[in-house]
Amino acid sequence: MTKKRIFTVLTLGFVLVFGGLATAQTVDSLPSWNDGKAKQSIIAFVAKVTKAGSPDFVPPAERIATFDNDGTLWAEQTMYFQLLFALDRVKALAPQHPEWKDKEPFASLLKGDVKGALAGGEHAILEIVMATHAGMTTEDFEKIVKDWIATAKHPTTKRPYTEMVYQPMLELLAYLRANDFKTFIVSGGGIEFMRPWTEKVYGIPPEQVVGSSIKTKFETRNGKPVIVRLPELIFMDDKEGKPIGINSHIGRRPIAAFGNSDGDLQMLQWTTAGQGPRFALYVHHTDAEREWAYDRKSNIGRLDKGLDEAKAKGWTVVDMKRDWKVIFPHEKK
Amino acid sequence: MTKKRIFTVLTLGFVLVFGGLATAQTVDSLPSWNDGKAKQSIIAFVAKVTKAGSPDFVPPAERIATFDNDGTLWAEQTMYFQLLFALDRVKALAPQHPEWKDKEPFASLLKGDVKGALAGGEHAILEIVMATHAGMTTEDFEKIVKDWIATAKHPTTKRPYTEMVYQPMLELLAYLRANDFKTFIVSGGGIEFMRPWTEKVYGIPPEQVVGSSIKTKFETRNGKPVIVRLPELIFMDDKEGKPIGINSHIGRRPIAAFGNSDGDLQMLQWTTAGQGPRFALYVHHTDAEREWAYDRKSNIGRLDKGLDEAKAKGWTVVDMKRDWKVIFPHEKK
Repeated sequence: MTKKRIFTVLTLGFVLVFGGLATAQTVDSLPSWNDGKAKQSIIAFVAKVTKAGSPDFVPPAERIATFDNDGTLWAEQTMYFQLLFALDRVKALAPQHPEWKDKEPFASLLKGDVKGALAGGEHAILEIVMATHAGMTTEDFEKIVKDWIATAKHPTTKRPYTEMVYQPMLELLAYLRANDFKTFIVSGGGIEFMRPWTEKVYGIPPEQVVGSSIKTKFETRNGKPVIVRLPELIFMDDKEGKPIGINSHIGRRPIAAFGNSDGDLQMLQWTTAGQGPRFALYVHHTDAEREWAYDRKSNIGRLDKGLDEAKAKGWTVVDMKRDWKVIFPHEKK
Repeated sequence: MTKKRIFTVLTLGFVLVFGGLATAQTVDSLPSWNDGKAKQSIIAFVAKVTKAGSPDFVPPAERIATFDNDGTLWAEQTMYFQLLFALDRVKALAPQHPEWKDKEPFASLLKGDVKGALAGGEHAILEIVMATHAGMTTEDFEKIVKDWIATAKHPTTKRPYTEMVYQPMLELLAYLRANDFKTFIVSGGGIEFMRPWTEKVYGIPPEQVVGSSIKTKFETRNGKPVIVRLPELIFMDDKEGKPIGINSHIGRRPIAAFGNSDGDLQMLQWTTAGQGPRFALYVHHTDAEREWAYDRKSNIGRLDKGLDEAKAKGWTVVDMKRDWKVIFPHEKK
C-alpha cells in the first residue's frame, strides 16, 4: 500500500461524508414530479419501509417493486410498440415470403393498410407476431430487436422508442434503487423483446424482466447448442398472468407495484394483499397535449375497473397532466 | 455532520485499506479445498474475468454463475431429498386420505415399503409428488416446506437436510459473490420446494432460483387473492430444460456452470458455447466413506456422458475424496 493510495482512500472518505450530507439536505430525487399527493405518497412510503427500527421497516432483500412497461414506463399509443416492431418486421421479411402477397393479414399490411390487417382481431395479431417473433434462435432474435430499437422511429412523434419513456418514472426507478429496492418489469410484452434494451434504458437487467413468452427448444446445430424460438404462446403475462409470472420469476410478493391499466389490476391486488406496508400506483393518462389522454374506453391500456378499485382502496393515482412537470426526457431543460 | 461521525468514516477508511491489504495476502477464500487442479482452475478463472483491462475481463453484470442443487450443493443419496419430503408428507396426510390404504403407490408406502411404492416408476413418483405438492396455495406450501426443512432428518445420517450441504461449495458460492458474480440455482427440483430455504442456507434469494414447476392459478378466495398449486407439471428443469430455464429466468448465458450429473450436461454445454472466457465444473462423487461414491451406473445423479465430455473438453472435475478437505460443515474443526 503506497502513501498515495492511502491518501486517495482518505480523500474518498471525506467526499462520501460531505457529499452524502449535501444530498440528504438539498437534492430532490424526483425533480420531474410536481409536489402533490402522488409524489408525497411515494416519498412517505419509501421513508416508512427504510426507517430502521420502525414497525414498518422492510429488509432490503424484501424490497421488491414491480413495474408494468407499456403505458407505465414508456408510451403505448397509437399502438403497442411491440406490434409496431412486428409490422416493421413483416415489411423487412416480405421479400422472403412471396406468399404473403395473397395471404391476410400480411397482404393488407404490405399494401399499407394496417387497420385492414388488424381487422382480423386477435387471430390476425397472433399470426403477425408469430411470423416475426419465431423461427430463429434466441441470439438471432436478440440481434433483430437491438437493431430495430437502435434505428426505428415512432410513426407520429418521429422519435426513437427509447426516448418515449417517462422521465418521472426513470427518476422513480432510480430513487427506489437508491433505497435498496430491487426493480422488476412485469409486462404483457414479450420477455425477449424487452430484455435486449431494458438495462440500458431503465437500469433493469434481463434477469429482472418478466413478460409473455413463446415456446423454445434446445438443440445442437453444427455442433453448437442453440435455443430456437417456436410459434407457440406458452405464457401470457397479463391480468391473472401477472401474479403468476411474479410468483414464477421472483418467488416473493412485491411490496410496491406500478401499472396503468386493467391488465395490471391483479398485480396490484396481489401486491397490496400481502402483510405489512404495501404500495400501489396507477399512472392515469390525462395529458392529450404532451402525451395521450385515455382510460375507460380505450382499446389500448384500458383503465376502468382499476380506476374504481384504486379510488375505493386509496391507491395512488398519478394524473400525468397535473403531477408530472415533464413527460419525456427531451422536455427537460 | 459531527466530528465523531467524520472520525468514524476516516477510521473506516483506514480499516478498509489495511483490512483489504491483509485479505489479499493471507486469507484463503476456499479453505476446505485441497490445493490441486480443481481449486487452481477456479481461482485462475475468477482472476482472469475480474482483472480490469484484461482481454478476458467480464463486467460484473455479466458474471452469471449457475449451480445445480441435488448432488452439487447438497447430497442426493439415498434418494432425492424432495422425494423424501414427499414420502414424509404422504404419512402426514394419510389420516385425511383413508382411500390411500387400498391405492398404490400410497398403500405400500404407508406399510413402510418404499421400494414397493416406487416400483411403479415415474408414474408412481408423479402420483406421490402431485398428491403432496398440489392442492394448496403457494403460501400454504411455503409453510409446509419451511416446517419440514426445520425439523426433518435424513434417514441414514440422522442430520437435518440443511446440514447435508457441501462446505466447499458454500465457500465457492461466497467466493464468487465476493468477486461480483451473481449466483443462481438451476435445479431439476421443484422451484417452490427450494425457495423457502435457499437464501438462509446458500445465500441465494428466491428470485435467483430456477427449478421445475407445476401449473398455478390466480383466484380470489373470500375477497383475498391467492395463487393455487395445480397437479400438472408444466416445466421440467433438467437436461435440455436447463438451458431453457436459464433463458427464461435469467435471460443471459452464464459464464460459469456447476453440476454433478448428466442432467447438467446441456447447461454446461450451453454455458461453455458462449463467446469469451467460460468455466464448467463437475462434482464427481468419489468418497464412499465421507459421502457416497457413484457415477456411471447410478440411477440417482448418473454421471456418464458428462464425465466423458468433461474429459474431452477439459472441464474441471472435482474428485470429492481427493479435492475436498471436508464434505459437510459439521466436519470442520
